[in-house]
Amino acid sequence: MNKMGVKAYTWKLDIANGRVDLSHGAGGRAMGQLIEDIFHKALDNDWLRAGNDQSTFAVPSGRMVMTTDGYVVSPLFFPGGNIGTLAVHGTINDIAMAGAVPLYLSACFIIEEGFPLADLECIAQSMGDASRETGVPIITGDTKVVERGKADGVFISTAGVGRVPDGLDLRADAAQPGDAVIISGSIGDHGVAVMSKRENLEFDTAIISDSAALHGLVAAMVAAGGKHIRLMRDPTRGGIAATLNEIANQSKIGFHIDEEAIPLKPEVAAACEFLGLDPLNVANEGKLVAVVAPDGADVVLAAMQAHPLGAEAMLIGHAVADENCFVQMATSFGGGRIVDWLSGEQLPRIC
Amino acid sequence: MNKMGVKAYTWKLDIANGRVDLSHGAGGRAMGQLIEDIFHKALDNDWLRAGNDQSTFAVPSGRMVMTTDGYVVSPLFFPGGNIGTLAVHGTINDIAMAGAVPLYLSACFIIEEGFPLADLECIAQSMGDASRETGVPIITGDTKVVERGKADGVFISTAGVGRVPDGLDLRADAAQPGDAVIISGSIGDHGVAVMSKRENLEFDTAIISDSAALHGLVAAMVAAGGKHIRLMRDPTRGGIAATLNEIANQSKIGFHIDEEAIPLKPEVAAACEFLGLDPLNVANEGKLVAVVAPDGADVVLAAMQAHPLGAEAMLIGHAVADENCFVQMATSFGGGRIVDWLSGEQLPRIC
Repeated sequence: MNKMGVKAYTWKLDIANGRVDLSHGAGGRAMGQLIEDIFHKALDNDWLRAGNDQSTFAVPSGRMVMTTDGYVVSPLFFPGGNIGTLAVHGTINDIAMAGAVPLYLSACFIIEEGFPLADLECIAQSMGDASRETGVPIITGDTKVVERGKADGVFISTAGVGRVPDGLDLRADAAQPGDAVIISGSIGDHGVAVMSKRENLEFDTAIISDSAALHGLVAAMVAAGGKHIRLMRDPTRGGIAATLNEIANQSKIGFHIDEEAIPLKPEVAAACEFLGLDPLNVANEGKLVAVVAPDGADVVLAAMQAHPLGAEAMLIGHAVADENCFVQMATSFGGGRIVDWLSGEQLPRIC
Repeated sequence: MNKMGVKAYTWKLDIANGRVDLSHGAGGRAMGQLIEDIFHKALDNDWLRAGNDQSTFAVPSGRMVMTTDGYVVSPLFFPGGNIGTLAVHGTINDIAMAGAVPLYLSACFIIEEGFPLADLECIAQSMGDASRETGVPIITGDTKVVERGKADGVFISTAGVGRVPDGLDLRADAAQPGDAVIISGSIGDHGVAVMSKRENLEFDTAIISDSAALHGLVAAMVAAGGKHIRLMRDPTRGGIAATLNEIANQSKIGFHIDEEAIPLKPEVAAACEFLGLDPLNVANEGKLVAVVAPDGADVVLAAMQAHPLGAEAMLIGHAVADENCFVQMATSFGGGRIVDWLSGEQLPRIC
């Protein structure tokens, strides 16, 4: 499809004051101009400039991964990021959770008529910056415009491909009793940052989303102890409660975790209390949970703590044999409880 | 992210009467159930059942392509298809236009709260059918739910990867003066089918979308005369007018085409006249335009006509040297005109 390519228009976009209209999604000159003036400029690479409806790259033989994610976060801009940075980081992270090296991304924009061009430019530039910082180019894309009231500003879907290092095979069903559970840092920062912005809450200490690309951290973990890693997952929607329950069910094991060991910023804990949220259910966008064979726990944890994005990594518990696949937590008060995942929503539109 | 994977819920979806609610996008049990009961059942393959946040596949060394597309068509169901079939066919076609063999797709759903589960199941099953018919599996996905009034039923983004046959290198800027322009069949069917449904028009002869996956046709063309093909493109949004203008601008040539040679169904011509549309601007979803070196035009055209999806293929004109990159058409009345692409919208939400 005619998407990200053609320079054949004569007027200029008024980015400061203009708004997206239906013509920007209709396949004509206006769409070409939007793509050129905003997306090509911000994302800036030879693949997009070639103006094909698909982009080409060379691969060596081996195993690859593919993933996709939709981003519908509200508000679009929040402390620590925006929908664009989230879309780049999130898809890189889904690739990295396979232990893979992210190679290329695609991005698809569904834009509501009337959306300010300046906001769109800001989002596109954030994506360009995130793409350059992470070294993962956005090589193909698409833009659609829907009538006012038929979307919520902008939705972004990204997809990505990556390469799995030879010999590595992480799987959702690979956790075994005795394995160590490690988290790369403090929980709940992203969800609370978004909720605070949405509810117009102000706290003494600003809470910033942890949105970050984890492929560098993963590379360090794989280099130090790849053969010991059973699986990794980023605890986004549903928080670490959902992630641990998913892994437990897929691997047919249980988990025992220790509340005291889970890193949680005091300001996030306070905000969760205020908002009535359990931080275990709150989304993260720059954290990973790794399940590691007992022999490798120390070396993997040390590699994580030596990396800026894993400096606060902690061993938070162990996998246990449990045919009920329960996640059980020893609480700070000396008691215990089952950590269930939610049946329904806690935090809609946080990613 | 927790996306397409986990079986850990106890009640059943009421698909006949139920509706999507926010809990279906929140990362908990309800989301797991929606994914299992609707998407896994319809798309049905081992990659999705493995329940990872990304899927793995092996590749030989060589060149690959990646593409993405967003689908926002309104209405969601139209004669000849629905948003789901369109999403599968469209992304396969963007891969095929590079001469590539489509391998794997991803699918991301953004669903409006209140959307009927029965419609979602129907769309998912159509995608499963289209995926099985084309032999291109959907191996990874994501589901988001937004509040009522923040979307329009459902939007789908698909991405895809494919493999480029060795020795083939089609490029948007490869057309040269003298090259033949071939279209694979009649124009305007998709856009008119969607518009007719949207406007509740009834014609004597039903107009059906041409939505189809073109990778089989492309494989036949490449086998017969791949070395002669300069480039291919599917004339979707903006129709063949936009496609030819894009190619002309990218290749820095002009085109002379012959109106009489362009296949156009009488009922589509009549509907376009009634709706005030120029069929050259109307979207197609199962057609391709190929620019072919003069020596290879006969063999490529013959290969197309021997394939069911190219039975009505026609040579419609030639590339010419033209520094203005104009697309000029000899009309049926014996005159001539410039075929410009539209500045703004003609048909919003037709793909």
